[in-house]
Amino acid sequence: MVSSEIDTGFAGVYFERNRERILADYFTLIRFPTVGADSKHLGDCAKAAAWLKQFLKPMGFSCELLTPATGLPVPVLFAERPGRPGSSTVLFYGHYDVQPEDPVDEWKTPPFEPTLIDNRVYARGAQDDKGQFFSFLYGLRALVEAGEDLPTIKILLEGQEESGSGAIAALLPELAPRIAADVLLVADTHSAPDFRPAIIAGMRGVQHFMVKLTGPSKDVHSGMHGGLAPNPALGIARLLASMFNPDGSVAVEGFRDGIAPPTEEEVRYATESTFDPEQYEKEVGCPPVGGTEGLPMVMRGSFEPTLEVNGIHGGYGGPGSKTVIPSSAFAKLSVRLVPDQSPAHVFNAIKAHLESHCPKGMKLEILEVFEGLPGFRLPIHSPVFRLAADALAKLDQRGPVFVWEGASIPIVSRLKQVSGAAPLLVGFGRECDNIHSPNESFGLDQFLDSMMWATLILKALV
Amino acid sequence: MVSSEIDTGFAGVYFERNRERILADYFTLIRFPTVGADSKHLGDCAKAAAWLKQFLKPMGFSCELLTPATGLPVPVLFAERPGRPGSSTVLFYGHYDVQPEDPVDEWKTPPFEPTLIDNRVYARGAQDDKGQFFSFLYGLRALVEAGEDLPTIKILLEGQEESGSGAIAALLPELAPRIAADVLLVADTHSAPDFRPAIIAGMRGVQHFMVKLTGPSKDVHSGMHGGLAPNPALGIARLLASMFNPDGSVAVEGFRDGIAPPTEEEVRYATESTFDPEQYEKEVGCPPVGGTEGLPMVMRGSFEPTLEVNGIHGGYGGPGSKTVIPSSAFAKLSVRLVPDQSPAHVFNAIKAHLESHCPKGMKLEILEVFEGLPGFRLPIHSPVFRLAADALAKLDQRGPVFVWEGASIPIVSRLKQVSGAAPLLVGFGRECDNIHSPNESFGLDQFLDSMMWATLILKALV
Repeated sequence: MVSSEIDTGFAGVYFERNRERILADYFTLIRFPTVGADSKHLGDCAKAAAWLKQFLKPMGFSCELLTPATGLPVPVLFAERPGRPGSSTVLFYGHYDVQPEDPVDEWKTPPFEPTLIDNRVYARGAQDDKGQFFSFLYGLRALVEAGEDLPTIKILLEGQEESGSGAIAALLPELAPRIAADVLLVADTHSAPDFRPAIIAGMRGVQHFMVKLTGPSKDVHSGMHGGLAPNPALGIARLLASMFNPDGSVAVEGFRDGIAPPTEEEVRYATESTFDPEQYEKEVGCPPVGGTEGLPMVMRGSFEPTLEVNGIHGGYGGPGSKTVIPSSAFAKLSVRLVPDQSPAHVFNAIKAHLESHCPKGMKLEILEVFEGLPGFRLPIHSPVFRLAADALAKLDQRGPVFVWEGASIPIVSRLKQVSGAAPLLVGFGRECDNIHSPNESFGLDQFLDSMMWATLILKALV
Repeated sequence: MVSSEIDTGFAGVYFERNRERILADYFTLIRFPTVGADSKHLGDCAKAAAWLKQFLKPMGFSCELLTPATGLPVPVLFAERPGRPGSSTVLFYGHYDVQPEDPVDEWKTPPFEPTLIDNRVYARGAQDDKGQFFSFLYGLRALVEAGEDLPTIKILLEGQEESGSGAIAALLPELAPRIAADVLLVADTHSAPDFRPAIIAGMRGVQHFMVKLTGPSKDVHSGMHGGLAPNPALGIARLLASMFNPDGSVAVEGFRDGIAPPTEEEVRYATESTFDPEQYEKEVGCPPVGGTEGLPMVMRGSFEPTLEVNGIHGGYGGPGSKTVIPSSAFAKLSVRLVPDQSPAHVFNAIKAHLESHCPKGMKLEILEVFEGLPGFRLPIHSPVFRLAADALAKLDQRGPVFVWEGASIPIVSRLKQVSGAAPLLVGFGRECDNIHSPNESFGLDQFLDSMMWATLILKALV
């Protein structure tokens, strides 16, 4: 083993020399349509996990594919590689599952056929999270091939991050002793809006569920039954509306219980990396006026909980008119939680609200419940953050910013608890990557940044 | 020509002798998938209209297929047969178009393959309106084949009743002089809940349109954008909710302007033919608690206007969770109008409400507007109603009831104005026919009742 001084050029040279092989591997991984939420893609997930196992083995990893006894058996890949004796232990987490590709007809290229246009790879999962974690693994591979000293590395790759991380959560009791680590490295986050590298200093938690209202036993004629049959499409609208105050804040009693507000220092740092409203509107296509009126953007986007309607459906949606009162209607809802909101408490508060506001004459069901995990904030003056900041300053001379993500990686909260490791979330996503949307993409420059970050931080942690 | 005494046995004998041919013709008509709202079924509509023309010609009708210069060219069939000199003139109206068949997977038999089970014909259009108007035409045919004296009969069969009657409306100026008549016969309505024959003494009018809200230019991540991006799925819910008061009444300013309340006698007659709440719940699967709280069922179902959500859609609706803020959401809405609400005034009131309540940061569009036609009530002591009551007393010794329909046949309002004829709406639909729903059906007993009614009323109008 050798321990040379690694700089950004190390990964850059490796990428140039091995470009063809790296892209071929990356594209192979993308082509598995690993929609982990959908049982019909179970086989694709299994194939992707097996392929990743074969990718890691030659790098000196002992690998194991794990599936829990209950739930959808989407495999979790656990791999371990001993490092230099006395070095620290790194637990690296990523997810090989992706969001569903719909609406399919808005894609300009096939969602699962990676297409390279102007040095960007277009495909579902090109960024989230295949591109992010795989570029990190290729950085690691460059170090391994160079015979570099490395820390002990444990890798957990799961296939259900987008749908609640059920398998990995179920496996945690058995995995607990094996994943103990000093640092929990996660590559699933964004750079700052000005592309400065970002260290995630906090994330919101998430919970989600579906609300369904049923009225008539079948769709009925809206003329003959209008004024008589209770209308679930209207009912769901009124029920959702009842959960909000006129100023946009959440009206559910108990929703805000226990919230720990951010410190002044946290708000000050967070404000540094916030979009300005004009830039936001340009990027997203609408002004940033969601959430509670009167609060600053940084509060609404990072430090305040939200209740979002991810989908609402009921009755006729085709061309022209169909004058029915639909039999049922549903909404898919998600909550972003902040420290120290309790997911169980929030869910119970919402359930109580829904039950007490259920429109007359309709049956209420709460389905597909993922009770979720809390948000967290990390100490910004910790040693691991200082190591990371030094490494990132080599990538960008402006140095990194701290970001309190509005998004969630619920499993990170769990891994943090179980592994005892200090989370270090650094990723190279950008708004223009369109994750969770049609035409997702990842730039090869982002891919290379991630490789560089991998080489720099892994060497710093030896 | 002969003019024998026609009783119910006349149609009964004809049906038994010609059962096979009648069903074959009826099934042929049903098999044309005449979804008039959907341009891809234009060819099917044209074929159905041509087939109906060939059906009427041998009965002594001169027939013409008409299409307007603008709009979807779904043909209108106009046919005319001179009657006994000095007899009255009857204008008979029906529609050969049907509602869309969705949700297709809830059908137990193929929607456009008529299936006879226990003397009921299952298919889209088996009742509404193919079964109703075609049984009437077969009653007429029985009279023609028997060489009976008849009134002058004009027939108008259109293919866009379920989607606004655009073609016939556009053709009305040119048709006006040709459709002048004494009585406007329409076979598109229901019997009373206890199956007593029903004479329609009033109908609500209808208008419909679609409301669309657009926020982000694409679906965006609900974690990263929650609290920032305005959410159209929530926006549409809050916008629809804003249109209603807590008691379920419509909160749109100006919505109730000009309403002429029913007379005490009308309410008394109407109450006779109203479901009781237990029977309603058994038939429909939910209690009749729609509309404005505190009003009696007969008011809510017949004499009060309604605003219904026929469909609401936005964002993710598939299995599991997809944590997006959708780019857009829409609702399909319809209004049932009562005398003397002005459709234009009501539409403008709703438009003004929607525009003034459009959620912040979103674009509002009002699309697919059918401004509609007013409701009407008919004088219940008129001579034509007395003739009809006498004829219906032969079908059912309890005699007919008067019904003020909650539903609408907007074109009837127009034909009434243009033809100068007294509307006489008698049909043999039943709640269990499931019109506008999966598994629509029509009983052969209902088909025969309609044939009998045709023979009795046409002879009474000679």
